[in-house]
Amino acid sequence: MTGPIITLLTDFGLQDGYAAGMKGVILGIVPDARLIDISHLIAPQDIRSAAFVLYTACSYFPPRSIHLAVVDPGVGTDRRAIAVQTASRYLVGPDNGIFSLILAEENGCEARVLENPEFHLKRVSRTFHGRDIFAPAAAHLARGVSFEAFGPPCTPIICDWINPTNTKDGLEGEVIHIDRFGNAITNVKQGILEKTAPLRQWTVQAAAADPMPILNTYGHGHSGSTFALVGGSGAIEIAVNRGNAALKLGLQTGTKVVFRMS
Amino acid sequence: MTGPIITLLTDFGLQDGYAAGMKGVILGIVPDARLIDISHLIAPQDIRSAAFVLYTACSYFPPRSIHLAVVDPGVGTDRRAIAVQTASRYLVGPDNGIFSLILAEENGCEARVLENPEFHLKRVSRTFHGRDIFAPAAAHLARGVSFEAFGPPCTPIICDWINPTNTKDGLEGEVIHIDRFGNAITNVKQGILEKTAPLRQWTVQAAAADPMPILNTYGHGHSGSTFALVGGSGAIEIAVNRGNAALKLGLQTGTKVVFRMS
Amino acid sequence: MTGPIITLLTDFGLQDGYAAGMKGVILGIVPDARLIDISHLIAPQDIRSAAFVLYTACSYFPPRSIHLAVVDPGVGTDRRAIAVQTASRYLVGPDNGIFSLILAEENGCEARVLENPEFHLKRVSRTFHGRDIFAPAAAHLARGVSFEAFGPPCTPIICDWINPTNTKDGLEGEVIHIDRFGNAITNVKQGILEKTAPLRQWTVQAAAADPMPILNTYGHGHSGSTFALVGGSGAIEIAVNRGNAALKLGLQTGTKVVFRMS
Repeated sequence: MTGPIITLLTDFGLQDGYAAGMKGVILGIVPDARLIDISHLIAPQDIRSAAFVLYTACSYFPPRSIHLAVVDPGVGTDRRAIAVQTASRYLVGPDNGIFSLILAEENGCEARVLENPEFHLKRVSRTFHGRDIFAPAAAHLARGVSFEAFGPPCTPIICDWINPTNTKDGLEGEVIHIDRFGNAITNVKQGILEKTAPLRQWTVQAAAADPMPILNTYGHGHSGSTFALVGGSGAIEIAVNRGNAALKLGLQTGTKVVFRMS
Repeated sequence: MTGPIITLLTDFGLQDGYAAGMKGVILGIVPDARLIDISHLIAPQDIRSAAFVLYTACSYFPPRSIHLAVVDPGVGTDRRAIAVQTASRYLVGPDNGIFSLILAEENGCEARVLENPEFHLKRVSRTFHGRDIFAPAAAHLARGVSFEAFGPPCTPIICDWINPTNTKDGLEGEVIHIDRFGNAITNVKQGILEKTAPLRQWTVQAAAADPMPILNTYGHGHSGSTFALVGGSGAIEIAVNRGNAALKLGLQTGTKVVFRMS
Repeated sequence: MTGPIITLLTDFGLQDGYAAGMKGVILGIVPDARLIDISHLIAPQDIRSAAFVLYTACSYFPPRSIHLAVVDPGVGTDRRAIAVQTASRYLVGPDNGIFSLILAEENGCEARVLENPEFHLKRVSRTFHGRDIFAPAAAHLARGVSFEAFGPPCTPIICDWINPTNTKDGLEGEVIHIDRFGNAITNVKQGILEKTAPLRQWTVQAAAADPMPILNTYGHGHSGSTFALVGGSGAIEIAVNRGNAALKLGLQTGTKVVFRMS
């Protein structure tokens, strides 16, 4: 028997021991938990980026994994703390849209507000619900506490930014994540474009850059050329051959990206 | 049966595999150890910051966890290598004050100098005692070697900087850690201030900034305003609403912070 | 019984969840794997640095550990994906020289091309073989799939840069890694120099710096002085007392370093 898997994603960084505090709390409740970091370097308070990184990574984890996600600009306000049960996994975190990309693809999800103080730490701080509310909830879920026990049912927020929109100018999406290499991942998936036409017939435009083609791999094009491609997650991303697209083109989370048929 | 918990805290960074070398050594000695990183991004040789991060995180781990802490500017000199047994946990690292904040709150601690070569790696390098002395010690402790076997008893160093001092100008503390968000954590705890007066009657002054109030959450105040609050660890920290206090005010480890009744 | 050890080394960074995707894949195949990060912060596409970090860390892991290393500038081209069985461990990654330092010291290695699609993810992306080919291979090895089943035998690449060369100017090596502290690790080992003369008779020259002595520890010399020493891995490295040698001297991976008898 192997222990339950709990993954962690936060914007707490790696220099402070905040994530470790959450892990200590979890191990105190469910000693055989297998703890896997997804990332603690989400840009501070960047919910879109957190949602994308979580969405991308969690689908590769075994069924019934528990995914704890704490990017929480509203900590200390009245935003809700929730747990969500989907067909294949559990999600625990603030109800601020961080689960949008996952929930948009899942049917029959149930969610609960984490109101039951029995599953909080005894002393709940004003600033660190990751450790005091979310980590204990994930741990109690992992040790088999019934989902219903955590609090009343609720409907989680799904944010608008997950879908591109059709405009007279083309299909308008946006950058939702900048990765380590400076690639700008958009909210537009390969499948949406291919419903209309093969990828090679589309061009992509962002910021002040010229329209770019959608190519097959990073290896194509001459050094320094900008282009789009299908990333590992199935989303279209903007890249520069042996360069940093976000820096070169001035892209960031929220930058508009327009897709047109050429 | 779950294996023993060993946490790791160093200033080795994450780019070099130094921390991984320590983990390999541990797993070779105690294969079922559960290894948890507290941080490897402590500012190089910043013992105060290491002490704070360890103190904050370790209290959330289950009893009898082993906490390995290696921020060790004196490696290769005659500073002692020690293990400490407190009522609730084990500490392993250099005797340079890195355990000060923990030891100041624990009674009846015992400490040993890690002199017994039986519990060192066979070849001890001059520059990497984390891997060659401290990691094996933590692992042998975890597999049940008696505490007395490691070497002769000693009294660990507790540094002066852990306590604020009363001056005619007010209660003088200092910054002991800058966190990812640029919040400057001080060595002054909520409880010390509240012994004299409620938090709202105190002001905080640091560097050239105007005196700041102590507020309830990060959400208060207008964007860019500077203030103090009680952090997740119970210590007073200086923050900027949606900004980086350390950069804005020029705060760093060691910066003096004065608390006065208003 | 403890599960198999699988270590991970990549240049994927820690902000994107790419490494976590690999871990999810592995845990889906071999649930009791013990996953240990060596580093995910290798400089992008820096194979020399990856080879050094892997070489340094892996020798401290227990026999039969599986070391997954993915720094893969050639992903999407026809570079081979391989697994290597040495006397003491398994290596899995691209065949681009990333295992050079290990293989140069091991006899009787066997290698296989990871061609068998049975041990790939069902859908193999163009850009993320770490998750789609290498992680599954490591996991299937860990659960006991026979080495021969992965694909046809091959001879892995061992790169030239692992060995210094004798020139009329002295023994010419190069920097193969810059560590967190800015120390520049070279491809020249203590033993090679000592075959000719004791370390104290050698000087080291790099970039425009004056020849430096080889000293005993980081603590020696006045603040700011540059010198060489034997690092934790047995390789000669260039350091600055309380400073950053790479920044001060302009050193980077590939910088030539000349060793002379004084």
